[in-house]
Amino acid sequence: MKALVLQQLHHPLVLQETAQPRPARGEALVRLKAAALNRRDWWITQGQYSQIQLPVILGSDGAGEYQGKPVVLYPAGAWGNDPRVQGKDFRILGLPENGTFAEWIVVRKQHVVPKPGHLSWEQAAALPLAGLTAYRVLFSRCRLRPGERVLITGIGGGVALMTLQFALAAGAEVYVTSGSEVKIQKALEIGAKGGANYREADWGNRLKAQSGNFDVVIDSAGGDGFAALMGLCNPAARIGVYGGTLGKINGLSPQILYWKQLSILGSTMGTLSEFKRMLGFVCQHRIVPAVDAVFPLAEGNEAMQRLAGSEQFGKVVLKIDE
Amino acid sequence: MKALVLQQLHHPLVLQETAQPRPARGEALVRLKAAALNRRDWWITQGQYSQIQLPVILGSDGAGEYQGKPVVLYPAGAWGNDPRVQGKDFRILGLPENGTFAEWIVVRKQHVVPKPGHLSWEQAAALPLAGLTAYRVLFSRCRLRPGERVLITGIGGGVALMTLQFALAAGAEVYVTSGSEVKIQKALEIGAKGGANYREADWGNRLKAQSGNFDVVIDSAGGDGFAALMGLCNPAARIGVYGGTLGKINGLSPQILYWKQLSILGSTMGTLSEFKRMLGFVCQHRIVPAVDAVFPLAEGNEAMQRLAGSEQFGKVVLKIDE
Repeated sequence: MKALVLQQLHHPLVLQETAQPRPARGEALVRLKAAALNRRDWWITQGQYSQIQLPVILGSDGAGEYQGKPVVLYPAGAWGNDPRVQGKDFRILGLPENGTFAEWIVVRKQHVVPKPGHLSWEQAAALPLAGLTAYRVLFSRCRLRPGERVLITGIGGGVALMTLQFALAAGAEVYVTSGSEVKIQKALEIGAKGGANYREADWGNRLKAQSGNFDVVIDSAGGDGFAALMGLCNPAARIGVYGGTLGKINGLSPQILYWKQLSILGSTMGTLSEFKRMLGFVCQHRIVPAVDAVFPLAEGNEAMQRLAGSEQFGKVVLKIDE
Repeated sequence: MKALVLQQLHHPLVLQETAQPRPARGEALVRLKAAALNRRDWWITQGQYSQIQLPVILGSDGAGEYQGKPVVLYPAGAWGNDPRVQGKDFRILGLPENGTFAEWIVVRKQHVVPKPGHLSWEQAAALPLAGLTAYRVLFSRCRLRPGERVLITGIGGGVALMTLQFALAAGAEVYVTSGSEVKIQKALEIGAKGGANYREADWGNRLKAQSGNFDVVIDSAGGDGFAALMGLCNPAARIGVYGGTLGKINGLSPQILYWKQLSILGSTMGTLSEFKRMLGFVCQHRIVPAVDAVFPLAEGNEAMQRLAGSEQFGKVVLKIDE
C-alpha cells in the first residue's frame, strides 16, 4: 500500500510502498479514504515529542471503509478504566502505532465507529481528534449550559473551531479572540457574536464592552494573557484548558479565584464513550467541521507546510484515493 | 448588653454597654454563650477590608441559646439563589451587620440551627465559619472520596484544621505542610499521616517520598509555591483554593494542567444547606473542633493579639458569661 512515512526527523515525509498491515484478533483492517493533520504531527517531524520511533506513519484522524461500511476512527488507544483521566498506557494514533496517512490501517475493532451520514470523507476525517477534544473540554469538563456566554481564545485552530460550532449548537452565545482580523471575521460568519484581536492592548475591555463577562472560557494558550481571562469571568465560571502554546501562566490572583468560585479545568482528548457521544451530537445538529484545505496523499508535505504556517482556518485534510 | 465594639481602625476594641438589639419579623434574638475569632476580624481592625462602617460589633462565629434551645449561627447572610456561588448581596456576619462579640445578636430565623450535642459552647462557636469553608472546599468542590490522599497546606489555621479533621473522618489519608515543626507534630497527633516543613528547600520531594502523590490538595496560600503543588498531584487531582495569603500564583504549567486533567477550584464560605450538612457530618463523626485558647469577652483584645501572632493551633474563642 501507499503511505506517507516519516523516516528522519527534520526531513520531508516520504510517499512509499509499504506492506499492508494485517489485523490480529480483535483488530480491524480499515481502508482509509481521508486523513486529517494535527499540530502533533508537525511537532513529531520536528522532534518535539518524547519517545519517537522511526520509521512511522503519522496521522491521528481517519475516515474510511470497514467491511463495506463508512467509518471514522477513535483517535487514541488504551485510555484506561478511569473516565476522569487517561491511564499510563494511553497513546494517540500515529505514534508509536502507525497512523492514518496511508491507504490502510489496523486499529482495535471497538475504535471503529459509524461515520456521520451527512459528512463527506474529508469532513468526517476532520472530526475525530479536534471534535473529541472540544467535546470533552466543553461538555464533560466545563459543563456548558444553554444560554451561557462562552469565550474561545485563538480561533482558527481545529479544536477552537469545533468548540465554537459545538457551543453554538448547544445554545450558547459565543465570542472569540484571535491575532487575525480575517479569522475573527470568519468566526462571525459561522455564528460567533463578537470577537477581539488580542494583539490590541485593550482587547479585554473591548470584549467586555461587547459582551459582558463569560460563564465559560476555553483556552489553549496559557501564558501571560491567561490571568486577564479570570477578570473576564462571571461568578462560578469555568475555564477549560486544553493547550499551552504560550507557556507558563503567571500573575493569577487566588482572591479572584476563590471569591468568584472559579474552576480552572485541564482537559485532553477524551474517552471512547465521549467520542461516540460527540458523533451523536454532530449528527443531531448536522454539524459540518470546517475544512481549510484538501491535499492528495502525495502532497502530504505541502499539507504539513500549510499547518506549520498557522494560516489555516479549520482542518487540513489529506484525500486518499485508490 | 455588653459588647466588644470597634470604634476606630487601628485601635483596640472597646467593651461597652450597648442597646440590646430588637428582632424584626423573621428574625431571631439569640443569647450568645461563645464566639470565635477569624482572621477577617483582625483584617477589619487594620482597615484591610472594603466598605467598613463604624462603630461595629465584629464576629462571624457564635453559639448560644434561642428560645431555651442550644444553637449555632450560619455565619453569613444573603447567599443568593445559586448554590455554585454567592450573590451580590452576600455578606459575612459581623460587618456591616453587628456580629457575635456581644451578649445578644439578631439574625434571620433560618440561620439559627441546632447545636451539635457533643460540643461545649466554646467548641460549637469554633465551628461555623471554618467548618463551613472546609466542608464546601473539600466535599462540594473537590468531591473527596474515601481512600484518597489529601494534602493540606499551612496547617494550624482554623479552616486547615477543620479540613484535616473532616478529611480523616471521610476516610482519607492526610498529609500537611507548615512552617512550624510544632504544628506538624500536632497535626500528626490528630491523625495526619505525615508532613513537611515548607521552609526547607526540598519539602516537595520529602513529602513525595513519604506519601506518593495527592488526589486532593487544599491550599490557602497561593504565591510562588503553588506551582509546585501541581507537580505533587496525581492524574485527575483537584486543588481547592480558599485563600491567598502569599499573593499571586506564578509559573503554572498548562501542560501539567491538561495532561493530568487537573482541576483548580476556588471556594469561599458555603450555602445554608452546606452548613446544615456540615453540622450533620460533625455530629455523625463526633468531630470536636480544635480550640487554641479561650478568653473572656472582656479580654477580646488579648484574643485578637493571639490571632495576629499566627501562633495559634485551632480557633481562638471568646466565652460570653452572663
